[in-house]
Amino acid sequence: MVLYVIGLGLADENDITLKGFHAVKSSERIYLESYTSILMVPGFKERLETLYQKPVILAHRETVELEAESILQGAATSNIAFLVVGDPLSATTHTDLILRAKQSSPPIPVQIIHNASIMTAIGSSGLAGYNFGQTVSVPFWSDDWKPDSWLERIGENLNIGLHTLALSDIKVREQSPEDMSRGILRYQAPRYMLIPQLISQIIQAAASHGADYLQPQSTLAISLCRMGSSDERIVSGTLQELLDLANPSQEEAHADQAEDDADEMASEADLDKRRAARAEERAKRAFGEPLHSLVIVGRRLHPLERDYAANYACPGSRFLEVANHVYGCKE
Amino acid sequence: MVLYVIGLGLADENDITLKGFHAVKSSERIYLESYTSILMVPGFKERLETLYQKPVILAHRETVELEAESILQGAATSNIAFLVVGDPLSATTHTDLILRAKQSSPPIPVQIIHNASIMTAIGSSGLAGYNFGQTVSVPFWSDDWKPDSWLERIGENLNIGLHTLALSDIKVREQSPEDMSRGILRYQAPRYMLIPQLISQIIQAAASHGADYLQPQSTLAISLCRMGSSDERIVSGTLQELLDLANPSQEEAHADQAEDDADEMASEADLDKRRAARAEERAKRAFGEPLHSLVIVGRRLHPLERDYAANYACPGSRFLEVANHVYGCKE
Repeated sequence: MVLYVIGLGLADENDITLKGFHAVKSSERIYLESYTSILMVPGFKERLETLYQKPVILAHRETVELEAESILQGAATSNIAFLVVGDPLSATTHTDLILRAKQSSPPIPVQIIHNASIMTAIGSSGLAGYNFGQTVSVPFWSDDWKPDSWLERIGENLNIGLHTLALSDIKVREQSPEDMSRGILRYQAPRYMLIPQLISQIIQAAASHGADYLQPQSTLAISLCRMGSSDERIVSGTLQELLDLANPSQEEAHADQAEDDADEMASEADLDKRRAARAEERAKRAFGEPLHSLVIVGRRLHPLERDYAANYACPGSRFLEVANHVYGCKE
Repeated sequence: MVLYVIGLGLADENDITLKGFHAVKSSERIYLESYTSILMVPGFKERLETLYQKPVILAHRETVELEAESILQGAATSNIAFLVVGDPLSATTHTDLILRAKQSSPPIPVQIIHNASIMTAIGSSGLAGYNFGQTVSVPFWSDDWKPDSWLERIGENLNIGLHTLALSDIKVREQSPEDMSRGILRYQAPRYMLIPQLISQIIQAAASHGADYLQPQSTLAISLCRMGSSDERIVSGTLQELLDLANPSQEEAHADQAEDDADEMASEADLDKRRAARAEERAKRAFGEPLHSLVIVGRRLHPLERDYAANYACPGSRFLEVANHVYGCKE
């Protein structure tokens, strides 16, 4: 029969295509890949099961890599559906499973059912897909591990005038270093990089490499958050303007300081945790819940792109001024 | 109410999402944009009407630009659906309609419902979306008009090791120069550029610019035809190998020659037409019906990408040899 590899699209269970839905209904077993992407609605697996009226099996990275045989088992006599959030082949993650199916004896036919991904949703920024260069992923930095090879990629794009889609890191099913060293299999709460951290890492990386193609005050960017969901949020401005959106108000800063000063028993680690929690709350107030992505605008900005993206400019933004005078966007 | 701008996905009426389908069902008027994209199934409008159980209005370029007001009319009290093949915002084509809706008084809320486009379907080649640079469109050349600014874009991508998606031109609702000069509004049959012409223009452009980054024998490419449809066809090889797939066999070449020689009454124009028809037939035999797109593979080819794409190599192809020794793809 057929191995269906089905994209679920951007946001919720209703983003599957009719074709994908029919394929699911015809399948004997349904797997949901649950490691590369976030599911933007709570209880997603249960919502799928309600929609499909069938059980859905979660497939973690370990399952797919180690149990490919069991996933493919029975595919000679019945259809199998493998569901992936977004488009199923935007990364090469699943090519292994597909190759195994094709190389089975006898070969299992594979049908890919494509769907929207963040790579198509970038159109909502008003920027044309044609003007994007390579996409980069920006990983979480820690105190002693700050990989920044993605900066050079952004530079390559900017150098030829192209926009860059920067995807922010997500950490799901991550173990703490302590648990790992003790051999305890326990996962930490999922972490999603938000726009302020993403921009802040970009600015730091650019500064530490003396990369003059990226300037907080004169590089334009567009944040794309929860694309395709009913609370999607798009904001445009300079990098610095977007970063400042998550700053506390003066009153909040005073209240924070007062709270920290009052708590004499708090250790430095406690204070750090509290500051991180406040920053996260303000990032979500400014940009909404994850997932967050950012487009860094290239010089080849077209007036039509500019005019559409300007609709999303944050209050007081210099978006148009920078587009016209720094980018040289002429009408 | 809402203006829904809905992507129909890649191939047929069942590629709409459940969300898009529900939006259509809730709409009072349904427009189908019919100018930037080809509909891959015959009678597409009627198939949509059968699926939706509602009439669908074709919206040509003239309609959308001149009659935006009439499209948006009534949106204050009922939903309007505007359907676009692929993803609705992969080009900036529809931003004008969307901006008008947002700037109406009172503003008409707009909801974009994304879908797969050729930009996501590239994943079926086995190449990772991350490793693609800018996309180019290659227009039909005529005897006296051979625009080739897209070559430089391909060069920019190749220069930093990136893959390029090259979209082939389509001409729908095109008038002949004769009709135009006589003021007759009559459209020619639609024309779709096929892989051999696309590759041949690429090779000619590279030769005429002395572009050494593009070599027929040592530049790898992957043809993507009718992506997402049940007869999608993917073929990989060098540019020359793909071009040669549409060559006539020796016997066919002899038969062609004999046919042309026998027809002493045929004018040079008749012979040209006949040759073009044969070339088209052989191009379709090798690659299938339109739409055709081509990926030009960049140096940053990863072994996982190589191994997947090699599955689509044409018979006798040097794909792996070139990947390993020219591209330096190491495992």
